[in-house]
Amino acid sequence: EVLTIPVDDPVAFTFFTGYMAMMAASVFFFFERSRVTGKWKLSLLISGLITFIAAVHYYYMRDYYLSTGDNPTALRYIDWTLTVPLMCVEFYLLTKAAGAKKSLLVKLIIASVWMLVFGYIGEAFNPEGGSTSHSVIYGVLSTLGYIYILYTAWIGEVAQLSKKSDNPLIQKSVRILAWFVLVGWAVYPIGYMCMPGGWLNIAFGWEPSSVDLFYNIADAINKIGFGLVVYNLAASDTERLA
Amino acid sequence: EVLTIPVDDPVAFTFFTGYMAMMAASVFFFFERSRVTGKWKLSLLISGLITFIAAVHYYYMRDYYLSTGDNPTALRYIDWTLTVPLMCVEFYLLTKAAGAKKSLLVKLIIASVWMLVFGYIGEAFNPEGGSTSHSVIYGVLSTLGYIYILYTAWIGEVAQLSKKSDNPLIQKSVRILAWFVLVGWAVYPIGYMCMPGGWLNIAFGWEPSSVDLFYNIADAINKIGFGLVVYNLAASDTERLA
Ligand SMILES: CC1=C(/C=C/C(C)=C/C=C/C(C)=C/C=O)C(C)(C)CCC1
Ligand SMILES: CC1=C(/C=C/C(C)=C/C=C/C(C)=C/C=O)C(C)(C)CCC1
Repeated sequence: EVLTIPVDDPVAFTFFTGYMAMMAASVFFFFERSRVTGKWKLSLLISGLITFIAAVHYYYMRDYYLSTGDNPTALRYIDWTLTVPLMCVEFYLLTKAAGAKKSLLVKLIIASVWMLVFGYIGEAFNPEGGSTSHSVIYGVLSTLGYIYILYTAWIGEVAQLSKKSDNPLIQKSVRILAWFVLVGWAVYPIGYMCMPGGWLNIAFGWEPSSVDLFYNIADAINKIGFGLVVYNLAASDTERLA
Repeated sequence: EVLTIPVDDPVAFTFFTGYMAMMAASVFFFFERSRVTGKWKLSLLISGLITFIAAVHYYYMRDYYLSTGDNPTALRYIDWTLTVPLMCVEFYLLTKAAGAKKSLLVKLIIASVWMLVFGYIGEAFNPEGGSTSHSVIYGVLSTLGYIYILYTAWIGEVAQLSKKSDNPLIQKSVRILAWFVLVGWAVYPIGYMCMPGGWLNIAFGWEPSSVDLFYNIADAINKIGFGLVVYNLAASDTERLA
């Protein structure tokens, strides 16, 4: 049995590119970790773990997609269950020097679990043929968790702490990451609405396979991009202290 | 099930040699990274990532080729989508000390995406039996991107910056890499013209399987050779500073 990738399947293309991009990014973060100053080593390790966890899941998801043509919904949420909380850890580590408490981390994780649980119900238990009301109800519930994270990053605790930070590099990086949450994360709900019964599926006839097209693109931006922002911060801070 | 490699199939031979050469080169670059001076560690890491990404894709491509006898076009472009931009990063890192800006990197990456998108359309959507006009039109469009990179390396920003560099080692290396882009990269369009309907296919009856023969040879030269040039520079500069 050999893997054949149809040349006209952008979903398959992004699954494969995503797989190898995640793997390469992990190698990058793990190696470069040795070059940054002590206080940023933990953050780089987390960046590498996020992409490494994703690489393994992409390895399974691409094969699943190639052989069935279906959305690997379970694997997707298995991945997010691990990687989204780790992204919350990144926010916590960035603002820790400015006084972030464990409770901030706990709140962010609760919000992401909320977001993912309702998203999973929305996708995994979408009735045969697709139900718009089902997808809207659980989509909206999920979005509440997303909005909480957005609020925290832009206005709430994370934004406040970053403002108090005496390190302009941290202020700048938290601001960039907040943009990631606003723009990069917003690609996920677009993908969600492509499932049978979803708004974009109904309004524009977007295929259910586009769910994964959007998720793959968003994952590449957010997991690798997020990591690179943290890496840039770490590298610049290392230089500053040298 | 065991892999059997026909003794009279140069394409299969180069897929296997290419696979292991890429893997060995990655191990080489990753290990030697620890011996070069700090400012070159990132460049060596990128060299290793380029060959590592290729090694994984060669692993799949050789099996695909052995079991189907077809060109693994999708996998080939999945590989280039990741490795060509990383080669642009190498150019950027080399000229950074002489003042290269992020915009140089962005321009080089846009040119390579242009080159690859049209090349992909040319190969993947070549009509059954092969169309000369199709392959020529998209080949020419793709070549415009290639020429832009060539121009930048020989006359444009990269060449100018390298001239301004106060490090003769960098000047020499950028010149060698420009030769790679001129000679080594030119092997790819030769492979492209072997596909059904391509000029070399029609003029000399060169087989469609030769597409991959040329791509494999070119990849070995460019990915590993490019990396070794950067390695030589890093090693000499480390010695100079010692
Ligand atoms: C708002 C919303 C969603 C948001 C998902 C997000 C924001 C996922 C983020 C994942 C990340 C950042 C992974 C990185 O490792 C769902 C669940 C699609 C359901 C529809 C509503
Ligand atoms: C000009 C041209 C092409 C050029 C391809 C090149 C130049 C690929 C380079 C790949 C490299 C350098 C990979 C290294 O990792 C195509 C797409 C075959 C299409 C025909 C016209």
